Amino acid sequence: MDIGNNILITGGLGFIGSYFAEKISLEKKVIILDNFSANSKEAYESLNGRENITIFDEDILFCDYADYLPNINTVFHFAANSDISSGVDNPQVDFEITTKGTHRLLTSMQKFNVKNLIYPSGSGVYGDVKETTLSEKYGPLEPVSFYGASKLSAECFISAFCHMNGLFARVFRFGNVVGLRQTHGVAYDLIKKLRGDKSYLQVLGDGFQSKPYIHVEDIYNGIMIALENTNDLDSFDVFNLATDENITVREIVSEILYALDLTGETKVIYGDQKAGWLGDVPIYRLNTNKIRTLGWQNKHNSKQALSLAISYLIKHDFS
Amino acid sequence: MDIGNNILITGGLGFIGSYFAEKISLEKKVIILDNFSANSKEAYESLNGRENITIFDEDILFCDYADYLPNINTVFHFAANSDISSGVDNPQVDFEITTKGTHRLLTSMQKFNVKNLIYPSGSGVYGDVKETTLSEKYGPLEPVSFYGASKLSAECFISAFCHMNGLFARVFRFGNVVGLRQTHGVAYDLIKKLRGDKSYLQVLGDGFQSKPYIHVEDIYNGIMIALENTNDLDSFDVFNLATDENITVREIVSEILYALDLTGETKVIYGDQKAGWLGDVPIYRLNTNKIRTLGWQNKHNSKQALSLAISYLIKHDFS
Repeated sequence: MDIGNNILITGGLGFIGSYFAEKISLEKKVIILDNFSANSKEAYESLNGRENITIFDEDILFCDYADYLPNINTVFHFAANSDISSGVDNPQVDFEITTKGTHRLLTSMQKFNVKNLIYPSGSGVYGDVKETTLSEKYGPLEPVSFYGASKLSAECFISAFCHMNGLFARVFRFGNVVGLRQTHGVAYDLIKKLRGDKSYLQVLGDGFQSKPYIHVEDIYNGIMIALENTNDLDSFDVFNLATDENITVREIVSEILYALDLTGETKVIYGDQKAGWLGDVPIYRLNTNKIRTLGWQNKHNSKQALSLAISYLIKHDFS
Repeated sequence: MDIGNNILITGGLGFIGSYFAEKISLEKKVIILDNFSANSKEAYESLNGRENITIFDEDILFCDYADYLPNINTVFHFAANSDISSGVDNPQVDFEITTKGTHRLLTSMQKFNVKNLIYPSGSGVYGDVKETTLSEKYGPLEPVSFYGASKLSAECFISAFCHMNGLFARVFRFGNVVGLRQTHGVAYDLIKKLRGDKSYLQVLGDGFQSKPYIHVEDIYNGIMIALENTNDLDSFDVFNLATDENITVREIVSEILYALDLTGETKVIYGDQKAGWLGDVPIYRLNTNKIRTLGWQNKHNSKQALSLAISYLIKHDFS
């Protein structure tokens, strides 16, 4: 896929979006739309004023795309509800931002004849099928969270727009993404708790949750390799993008305590549920043969990716 | 599933909804919400004033469910965009009515503690995979129409509500449903055209489209058998519901011309595309072993179902 020279990134001040904005702007013009809802201050300070980057404070549910989409070649649509557990109490959050926001973008792209879309989906679309290794062809798809449902609903409409309206889209179902400027996730939450009180650490779930973690740098490289090796006959295609091994929450806890020199000092209290929250999928495995066949390999495994993320989080104030 | 005695049917004056309202009202109290958008006059005249049926002129996108959902045991959610081809030019129609309308119902059911949902989905969720016989577990799911996308998006959220909020739902993916009071479909369209001009008949697509047709009576019996034989451990379950054989559009044309005594008189003009319209899936096959295992069998095969529908349509004014 030739993504062209004019790129729009929604959620471009978020964790993953800002990484892409920074990298892509080295060669192409990037417009960022972001509503500053995530912890965007650091990303804003890092990206604002850079060559090739223009930042607009806009919400994808209300913005006038006529101001931004004409002349855009490719949209990287990272704006979404990234706080998965917030959907637990409010079924509207994911639906509004992810489902409606994506559908609104799709109809607007059609209107302004923007043909290329990169969409970050997630393992949540597969539902809770334990240790089954999930290929992109897996069925049935029965999401168990509003987050997963909203991602899959967005995929449905992207597929239909590809077949109905000549859209060209690549969807990527990520493992748990970690790295610099991450604004959510288990390591983020645990370190935040320890900053409040070092004497004890309450962990959501029994700690045996086991998932593949992937560094944002590997996400970027994976997507770019997939785009370079596109089969242009397929207007719609889906790739899992994750590491092939997993680590448990208990291992992450140990790593964090070690990094903070709190091993043996902090009392760790685990929950008695397998899942960390309602809708959490405590164990999942993604088959990544499809993207690896294109030449991608992860630079960091799950443990290395988390170590990098933990180092970053420890050094940064994100309270 | 014990559906209880208080039933709400959205789209209860539509083709399939009105059939269910009529049958269910023989034993239970039925509230119908319908916005009179389909050709509802005949259904209204037939159902209004019947014992156990109360009809409200309401739109599922705007109604105040507080007026209707308290004390309801089960919702049969038939309100949807049934004019599949209308979605071709307007990607908003299916999204608004089917996706947003279903999500709005789900959040309202949660609010008023209504636990049971029966949802009519369709073969469109599977996308276009030619003659592959599709079981409920088939993946990947890549809808090629806004209609299919909206149905699958609704399924996604139903699945999530089942896992997150204790909803109990049964989803049925229908073949092409035909029968009395049908308001769309190939036979309906062709007979309507012939009423305008008997001299020629323009058919959408090359006529070799081949699909399973199922009579609304078999839909009703299938759903009721599935509900009686529910595994209560599964809060969410999906069933294909279709006949196991198929007929082509050319066969339907012949049957209609014969029934109208126009064989050899009307010049039939076929299109040169396989699909009847953009997003049409010209050939599909549904594996129905799952529901047949529960004891269901169709009373009418595809040809018989269409013959009944054609007889009905010829006798009725629906212009």
